[in-house]
Amino acid sequence: MTFEVYIEIDTDGHRSGVKPQSEDLIAIGRLLHQGNVQLAGVMTHAGSSYELSTPAALQAMAEQERIGCVLAASRLRSADLPCPNVSVGSTPTALSALNLEGVTEVRAGVYVLFDLVMANVGVCSLDDIALSVLTTVIGHQKDKGWVIVDAGWMAMSRDRGTQKQVHDYGYGQVCNTAGEPLAGIQMTGANQEHGILSSLIAQSDQTIVEQFPVGTQLRILPNHACATGAQFPEYHAVTSADGQLAVSATWQRFYGW
Amino acid sequence: MTFEVYIEIDTDGHRSGVKPQSEDLIAIGRLLHQGNVQLAGVMTHAGSSYELSTPAALQAMAEQERIGCVLAASRLRSADLPCPNVSVGSTPTALSALNLEGVTEVRAGVYVLFDLVMANVGVCSLDDIALSVLTTVIGHQKDKGWVIVDAGWMAMSRDRGTQKQVHDYGYGQVCNTAGEPLAGIQMTGANQEHGILSSLIAQSDQTIVEQFPVGTQLRILPNHACATGAQFPEYHAVTSADGQLAVSATWQRFYGW
Repeated sequence: MTFEVYIEIDTDGHRSGVKPQSEDLIAIGRLLHQGNVQLAGVMTHAGSSYELSTPAALQAMAEQERIGCVLAASRLRSADLPCPNVSVGSTPTALSALNLEGVTEVRAGVYVLFDLVMANVGVCSLDDIALSVLTTVIGHQKDKGWVIVDAGWMAMSRDRGTQKQVHDYGYGQVCNTAGEPLAGIQMTGANQEHGILSSLIAQSDQTIVEQFPVGTQLRILPNHACATGAQFPEYHAVTSADGQLAVSATWQRFYGW
Repeated sequence: MTFEVYIEIDTDGHRSGVKPQSEDLIAIGRLLHQGNVQLAGVMTHAGSSYELSTPAALQAMAEQERIGCVLAASRLRSADLPCPNVSVGSTPTALSALNLEGVTEVRAGVYVLFDLVMANVGVCSLDDIALSVLTTVIGHQKDKGWVIVDAGWMAMSRDRGTQKQVHDYGYGQVCNTAGEPLAGIQMTGANQEHGILSSLIAQSDQTIVEQFPVGTQLRILPNHACATGAQFPEYHAVTSADGQLAVSATWQRFYGW
């Protein structure tokens, strides 16, 4: 068996890989090509796009990602090395790119489900978010305006990706069972198996306790779909029929990465 | 089948349950006792003990937890209701209690493995931590003093429980494969599948890159063993024989809670 190997290109200083203009790029390409593997191309992931939130900045980052990866491919080809694939990544750039010339593959991931982080980045709306955690109200702390549910961070994950974004959603945005967001109601705290819901609109308002009696079912939209999905062994795909939601399929997940 | 039901007592205002002196306690006890369930007792979890770090404060919280739960039991019994069990929880209080009179059960959890949060609380040392993630160096960013490993937050979890404690360990404390902590070397950043290790002792020191060449194996101690364990389907139990570590058993985990 011959492995197809990609060289990771660092197009935004965010993580790993070699710089497009680096001396190492050609040396690595040569080593791989002369070795017992197949040089399949170059790949990058402009992860710093997650920190942006305006169309102009996202378009610029998408172009930076493309141009860096295409430059690396072009340098390898000029050195008589094969580089059939030019692969770029990241959901925000994939959805913002105005030009994909020279790119052969886009490896966006979270766009399949979307989440609150992506809503803050500006590449989806809350309505686009396809993943939620179904939970049940199990108690209250009336004097604190807390509604306690049976989904804590073991359900939502510990991801607080919206914490430093334009809108901090705590551990998640609360919705009714139809998935419609309830304005200002968030999971503001999370223990391992308990979630704490409260109202940002009226923190001292005890009506939240009457609004959500014990037994009420709710859906919570996640900060980060990748992290929340990883807390569960499977997805329950839900479809709507005659105004009722029903589980129409169960999709297994795999552990790890 | 008759369910054994415990009444949750709120002994520290941290989460859920009824206050030991609450009117609701007796009403709930009566409802349960007259209903189709068996009133098994009272239980509490002094989760706010996680925020403490001195023996005196931990001992006081353990006593507060005990006295609140025992008071609730005593009130139920005085109202001619059964209360055979008095159950207290939390690893920090379980390891700090000077008096457990009236308590019939201690539900500590994380003490089985320990973690960096518990080391900061002061109820274990780094040597006591029995859970680590085995990882391999896969790259470097020399100019940043970064060592990149194949364990990111999908391996460690997003838990940053040590962030506001006396010692912030980032996403974990780096050890050699024998599990011996390497002073000042931490996982300072984490992407989904990549961890970034750097030296806190000498941030600009590029020797970390030479110290940990690609292929080096390391172990990372977790902030929170519960969260890190939940990222994996099983534990690999390791024993030492002739100075070599070997996997001697595999223990399955279950999903959920």
